[in-house]
Amino acid sequence: MSSVPNVGALVFDVFGTVVDWRTSVTRQAAEVAKARGVAGDWARFADDWRAGYRGGMEKVTKGEWPWMKVDAIHRRRLEEILPKYGLGDLGEAERSEFNKAWHRLDPWPDSVEGLTRLKKRYIIGTLSNGNVSLLTNMAKHAGLPWDCILSAELAGHFKRDIRAYQKAVELLDLPAEQVMLVAAHMSDLKGAQKAGLSTALVIRPDEYGPDGAPDLESDGTIDVVASDFVDLAAKMGA
Amino acid sequence: MSSVPNVGALVFDVFGTVVDWRTSVTRQAAEVAKARGVAGDWARFADDWRAGYRGGMEKVTKGEWPWMKVDAIHRRRLEEILPKYGLGDLGEAERSEFNKAWHRLDPWPDSVEGLTRLKKRYIIGTLSNGNVSLLTNMAKHAGLPWDCILSAELAGHFKRDIRAYQKAVELLDLPAEQVMLVAAHMSDLKGAQKAGLSTALVIRPDEYGPDGAPDLESDGTIDVVASDFVDLAAKMGA
Repeated sequence: MSSVPNVGALVFDVFGTVVDWRTSVTRQAAEVAKARGVAGDWARFADDWRAGYRGGMEKVTKGEWPWMKVDAIHRRRLEEILPKYGLGDLGEAERSEFNKAWHRLDPWPDSVEGLTRLKKRYIIGTLSNGNVSLLTNMAKHAGLPWDCILSAELAGHFKRDIRAYQKAVELLDLPAEQVMLVAAHMSDLKGAQKAGLSTALVIRPDEYGPDGAPDLESDGTIDVVASDFVDLAAKMGA
Repeated sequence: MSSVPNVGALVFDVFGTVVDWRTSVTRQAAEVAKARGVAGDWARFADDWRAGYRGGMEKVTKGEWPWMKVDAIHRRRLEEILPKYGLGDLGEAERSEFNKAWHRLDPWPDSVEGLTRLKKRYIIGTLSNGNVSLLTNMAKHAGLPWDCILSAELAGHFKRDIRAYQKAVELLDLPAEQVMLVAAHMSDLKGAQKAGLSTALVIRPDEYGPDGAPDLESDGTIDVVASDFVDLAAKMGA
């Protein structure tokens, strides 16, 4: 049995790692559409919305767009795709409420149990590109027992910019290697490694649905690989 | 009966408002001294240490000192006063540990019950000059059920600088008047008012000990005045 890494805090990627954004957004989109009698492929809608999140962050990172909260990136994409899915006549209040679908994502079945165990031994916090208010509202919605809400918003730079990880380390006031990033995405973990953090990969095979290409294995440089958060808690001695 | 203010989030001053810093630091100083067989007036030591916190923040605000975490301000003051109290021979590890006394402050008897009630209806967070790691550690020590840890550290400006309050509003992404600062100190509440926040005064008659001069009443401009956090929860409909 391998030894438990010497860390004081675990910070978590959130979208896909802690919560199942695709199922949650698909369901909420279907509800909005049903109320208006509009038919469509709402999983595809969720994927389409999500693609705008990645693209929007890239534009911010390249300086093509000014810094903005992920809420604002989500809203820009929503404006683009609503007409394509027959929902172009939603009013401002409805759009604003729909955009908060990302504040109401449901956790994977093991997330709350694993976090609750980890919290007894470690500081646990978010380290998401999601803005602070999004993450705070999501925690209340999903019952996520965070000790603190950390976000790329506090650095003014999105992951995988090294400054997003460095800001979290600075705020936690621990040596970088005593802060562990937990994520389902190898690119995020590689970013954290550049900033000196410890790393844990949690496998989330269903994040992107049946046609997705999730990260299913480590490249051999990740400190802990876990099948879910309960497995992570066990491997972290919590 | 007055109506409940329309707010979405309550943010709390912490030192003196949520936790009893004076009793907690006095006790921890007495423990350190006892272990070394040193006698002294440890309540006075606590007051002396606390005075350096205020003075240090003033120096930072005036630009005489660079920006630093409150942990660093506490440490500078600790270095000054240890010799005066016969503790000048403490080693580095002991000083570092002693400085974290401020991470281990105990709540007032009503704090956890009141916060737990308020959390069901509102977002509750810190808005302290204490740094994020201090506040995070304190929450674990004291069982404070915050939804998020906000700090002047995130603004890079200490209260009562208006930017400390504005940063909290920005991160919570609510209209300023829907964010309520809860504090035992009128000067803090007046600072929050300048940034457009709603305000609640909680009376903490014992914060400064028997010879202190706590704020015992509103100047008539405070939205809610409460005798403790349970009273505050009742007055906020929680």
